[in-house]
Amino acid sequence: MTPVTLSSEHEALFERFSDGKVLGLARAISVVENERPGFQELLHTVMASGPQARRVGFTGPPGAGKSSLVAAVATEYRKLDEHLGVVAVDPTSPYSGGALLGDRIRMNDISMDPGIFIRSMATRGSLGGLAATTKEVVDLMDAFGFDRVLVETVGVGQTELEVTAAADTVVVVLVPESGDAIQAMKAGLMEIADVFVVNKADRPGAPRLVKELRQALHLRSGSALRDIPAHHGVDLGQVVKKERTTEAPAEAPEGWSVPVLTTNALTNDGVDTLLETIQEHRIWLDEAGELERRRRARAEIRIRDVVDREMRRIAWKSSDVRALLARGVDDIANGDGTPYSAAEVILEALMR
Amino acid sequence: MTPVTLSSEHEALFERFSDGKVLGLARAISVVENERPGFQELLHTVMASGPQARRVGFTGPPGAGKSSLVAAVATEYRKLDEHLGVVAVDPTSPYSGGALLGDRIRMNDISMDPGIFIRSMATRGSLGGLAATTKEVVDLMDAFGFDRVLVETVGVGQTELEVTAAADTVVVVLVPESGDAIQAMKAGLMEIADVFVVNKADRPGAPRLVKELRQALHLRSGSALRDIPAHHGVDLGQVVKKERTTEAPAEAPEGWSVPVLTTNALTNDGVDTLLETIQEHRIWLDEAGELERRRRARAEIRIRDVVDREMRRIAWKSSDVRALLARGVDDIANGDGTPYSAAEVILEALMR
Repeated sequence: MTPVTLSSEHEALFERFSDGKVLGLARAISVVENERPGFQELLHTVMASGPQARRVGFTGPPGAGKSSLVAAVATEYRKLDEHLGVVAVDPTSPYSGGALLGDRIRMNDISMDPGIFIRSMATRGSLGGLAATTKEVVDLMDAFGFDRVLVETVGVGQTELEVTAAADTVVVVLVPESGDAIQAMKAGLMEIADVFVVNKADRPGAPRLVKELRQALHLRSGSALRDIPAHHGVDLGQVVKKERTTEAPAEAPEGWSVPVLTTNALTNDGVDTLLETIQEHRIWLDEAGELERRRRARAEIRIRDVVDREMRRIAWKSSDVRALLARGVDDIANGDGTPYSAAEVILEALMR
Repeated sequence: MTPVTLSSEHEALFERFSDGKVLGLARAISVVENERPGFQELLHTVMASGPQARRVGFTGPPGAGKSSLVAAVATEYRKLDEHLGVVAVDPTSPYSGGALLGDRIRMNDISMDPGIFIRSMATRGSLGGLAATTKEVVDLMDAFGFDRVLVETVGVGQTELEVTAAADTVVVVLVPESGDAIQAMKAGLMEIADVFVVNKADRPGAPRLVKELRQALHLRSGSALRDIPAHHGVDLGQVVKKERTTEAPAEAPEGWSVPVLTTNALTNDGVDTLLETIQEHRIWLDEAGELERRRRARAEIRIRDVVDREMRRIAWKSSDVRALLARGVDDIANGDGTPYSAAEVILEALMR
């Protein structure tokens, strides 16, 4: 392994971090989040011992009550005397860079507990940057020595992917209002969920959503592709078949059938079963060799992310390249080029 | 401008495309979507004349009825004899790559009209790739000569950003169920909306959402930051102030106050007002010089996207680099490295 030298400032920071000082962790996160000079060397140093914490991701659409559920789950783990890190990703304004608080407020009652460290992160608009930094903050929490790291991501679509790249177990949280099982399939939630939770289960529509999800999961498991009636105007059988005939990487876990649980984060109903299920999933991950596989897949994504980010950073920090970019924009505005001709000029300059 | 040579196949394709043959467009989209060899040269060739079409983006959370609204809006534009392209981005499985249909079904009644060309796109999971290709398909539709291109994107969070990079006018579609104004602020919707539409306006909660959005927009315009009572546990005044004191690029349009409209896509209520508002926004874009500014900002994003994509492509196609990647994953699994040491080795190889 390449020997890495930390600046004396980061050396001191690493010492505080290794001593389990929460302020050291907070400072390290801030260095990483702001991509301060040397942040990668710092990450390399703290991550030397590899992943240790149990990482559980919570994702789902806005309004599903994820924060409340994470707070409820965290409270239970605290009763088991686990030390916890919580990373919550807020999809706030890409333009302002400001982190609004909103749901975080609900975590107030647990946030005074010294056994929990909560970090709320804003997304930054840069597609690549966001993903990388979130995962790195999870890595920091892991390296800090928490028994468990809970990662909460909001959003439907791209953001969910991040959670698979940061967590061992992915809990997808839905509510009846967030749509039907078809929409969950469309959003790719079927592929990433290790556990489905229908939260706010006292609301009308919850039993129907549970039933739909179970049906869709059953279909996905391939046991009954044919004789399914059309549903919501879409033939589920067709949809699933189409999906399954596409060249898919072997992502579908074997030997784990995704359960659909119900919870009510406010009354704590179902939270104990959720904890048991997360534990069962962990045992399966270990026994099936899936934890190792997931960690390798994560390592690959992480390497690619770091390389891509460094390539971008190196490319766009060059003042020559920035001048070519500005000229390209002018050319396009004047009808004298396209993004492709401008990009070609920049790429040629980069190759030189 | 760099002279570009098309393959003879793409030369023939370009001819059909320029002749206004829909099959030529469909084929060009497929070339671009699959990033076939020469797709960038093809894009460069068709885009030589610059943007012409009016581009209107529709975005918002799943279940907001965006597809129905786009269908209703498209029907009205057809009555005005406009030729329309519609690009709908489905956040389907990143793993399967398959495009599910779902909402698209509702577009069936307009999809037989030869004056409309609808293309439903799957997202591909690759964060960068997705964004670039979607925008490029919009560019193709623009270059094909449609009077107007409607872009529908689903999702909350990153996906919305894409719509600003593809459209001149961004319509954010919400329903009472999709949450309150605080959530819209959190998701960055305040910053990207040129027009808010509360769809399914006959539902309970619609008037309240309209009121909240207007209040939040009013706050955002900076006219009444101080004397706002705490709301939903969050002091909106604080939130907005925090947001505004952060270093923000000068994105906030001046002279356009974002309207909050109500529609019911199924009964067509409010759709005429939406069309008028989109037209008013277009006039403002022209008169305020904002269209030019937005097109320049888009051009810059596009150039960066193309350069970043090419850098990634060039880097990861190398078999040496792929071997180093595999070795890096092994090293990490064996506790003999981190993503940063592995990335460093790869970057060194790339620089050589």
